Amino acid sequence: MVEQLVKEIGEQGLLARLQRFCPAEIVGDDAAVISYQEPGQSLVVTTDVLVDGVHFSDRTTSPEDAGWRAAAANLSDLAAMGASPLGITVGLGVTGDTTVSWVEQIYQGLSDCVNHYNTDIVGGDVCRSPVNTLAITAFGQVSPQHTLRRSAAQPGEAIVVTGVHGASRSGLELLLNPELGQHLSDTERRELIQAHQRPKPRLDVLPILWKVIEFQPSISPAGMDSSDGLADAVLQICRASGVGAELDYSSLPFPPALKQLVSSQTALEWVLYGGEDFELVLCLPPLLAEALVAQLGGASAIVGTITTGTDVRLRDASGVYPDEILSLRRGFQHF
Amino acid sequence: MVEQLVKEIGEQGLLARLQRFCPAEIVGDDAAVISYQEPGQSLVVTTDVLVDGVHFSDRTTSPEDAGWRAAAANLSDLAAMGASPLGITVGLGVTGDTTVSWVEQIYQGLSDCVNHYNTDIVGGDVCRSPVNTLAITAFGQVSPQHTLRRSAAQPGEAIVVTGVHGASRSGLELLLNPELGQHLSDTERRELIQAHQRPKPRLDVLPILWKVIEFQPSISPAGMDSSDGLADAVLQICRASGVGAELDYSSLPFPPALKQLVSSQTALEWVLYGGEDFELVLCLPPLLAEALVAQLGGASAIVGTITTGTDVRLRDASGVYPDEILSLRRGFQHF
Repeated sequence: MVEQLVKEIGEQGLLARLQRFCPAEIVGDDAAVISYQEPGQSLVVTTDVLVDGVHFSDRTTSPEDAGWRAAAANLSDLAAMGASPLGITVGLGVTGDTTVSWVEQIYQGLSDCVNHYNTDIVGGDVCRSPVNTLAITAFGQVSPQHTLRRSAAQPGEAIVVTGVHGASRSGLELLLNPELGQHLSDTERRELIQAHQRPKPRLDVLPILWKVIEFQPSISPAGMDSSDGLADAVLQICRASGVGAELDYSSLPFPPALKQLVSSQTALEWVLYGGEDFELVLCLPPLLAEALVAQLGGASAIVGTITTGTDVRLRDASGVYPDEILSLRRGFQHF
Repeated sequence: MVEQLVKEIGEQGLLARLQRFCPAEIVGDDAAVISYQEPGQSLVVTTDVLVDGVHFSDRTTSPEDAGWRAAAANLSDLAAMGASPLGITVGLGVTGDTTVSWVEQIYQGLSDCVNHYNTDIVGGDVCRSPVNTLAITAFGQVSPQHTLRRSAAQPGEAIVVTGVHGASRSGLELLLNPELGQHLSDTERRELIQAHQRPKPRLDVLPILWKVIEFQPSISPAGMDSSDGLADAVLQICRASGVGAELDYSSLPFPPALKQLVSSQTALEWVLYGGEDFELVLCLPPLLAEALVAQLGGASAIVGTITTGTDVRLRDASGVYPDEILSLRRGFQHF
């Protein structure tokens, strides 16, 4: 079967094909109208641009997965602010030689992800471009007292992470080099690859967090997501709050299979700098942090403490590894 | 002076340079938080993707103008829904060899436009791309009874346009072929070029429209903007409303200089299909339409009537031109 190309159906034809991914009542006007804000809530908005060959590639990522990941990254930014989603818009630039089915698969992945989190694609634009490009804007709502700010961390607070880190990076490696990790079980391989292809924004953490701090109205937890890595999240929170942090090596939540896959030094690099795990990193008074971890279960953990000063140190209580001062320079710098 | 390139300052460096275009209280977290919605309002969202060489070009458009036009197009989509703006987000894909100053000029144009309409750039993303790409999402608020829908037109209503059409297309022609229109006055040339480079979304029309229909709570005007041309706007409204229309040739608001610039046939083409004038096309009971035009003044005009049936006809009462049935196929189809 010959695949239909975008240039054969044109912009209007493509838009018509994509409308089935959007709620019917929202399609067909100049802009989407969304009427379900709750009173007293603030609007939260975040945006991302993803470019073929830079942020996604058919080599490691099916179009469905690229769509899912793009939506997940934006929903994770909402979760990082404490916000629940109201919808996303999708701007798509495509070459004329792109197949219609590729575009539909991108939208399928996007809509699978947003529908999983009870929200919708509420608007979009498609246009011709020399390179396939995806621009996602997500918006949500948050009540002012539940807004998670990077700048709210206080010395003495415990640092909570909501799950394992380094799993997405490991999954990418298994996709790029399938000969690696032959001694992992099928389940272990699948879980790591799934962590890369279908990351889960932690919107589910928010109601649990609000429940834990329910009777402490003066608490405003600091937080962000770990999309650029665990080290980046801690460093950004510390920089925004004017504080330091001490992380405990033995508390870092490694994926169980990671130390079988690579050296312990590489495993540590991936946990700290791998990125794209889309967990939340939250700072709370120690008792509340313990209550949160008890409620969340899974691989959630207290990984360290906010300190005075500005350094972010990684310490190994067992004394095997030397102390290390973490810096943003180990993370990604694009261009 | 050697111009600094994007690849020399990196993604973080570029973001830091662009933060001055955003309100300080909004910068530096995972997403923007906007707390100034009014109760009972709906959220309105629209998005556009613009690609270098497809939607803008240094040949006819300075980076400041490209930025202004991108913001104006999105604010116009809000106006087309009856919504007032709450902010825009800007997603920017740029090649490493783009100058930092080009990017800053794009942002200058974007922020000049949104600031002119009392709103802000509230979030953004920059990333590397093989082609310079601008993805704008605008969001605003509208009260449900003031939402302008394409689908609300009724037979017997008058069709109001808020200003001249064909001016942007004429300005583009003057930029592409500066030898044209030598007999136009400097003011005439400047106004046409300005219409192309600095189009004005008609957010100013909305409070006047609400005032005119203030004591008619059962009226819900149909409307959209004429970004894809006057013919397109009328055809889209008719299609969405299941009605037809009759337009009167002698009522169409031509820019005064247009008939001196090109043949009357070309002038008519540009008025109907030129696009990017960003006026509003509104359908209202005749008496209210007359009141609106009286209040708006300028080149606003009643250009025709909504009819039963589905055809959109252009008639010349003077009998010089034959009747014509307008169709979307005369408009733009990208790819």
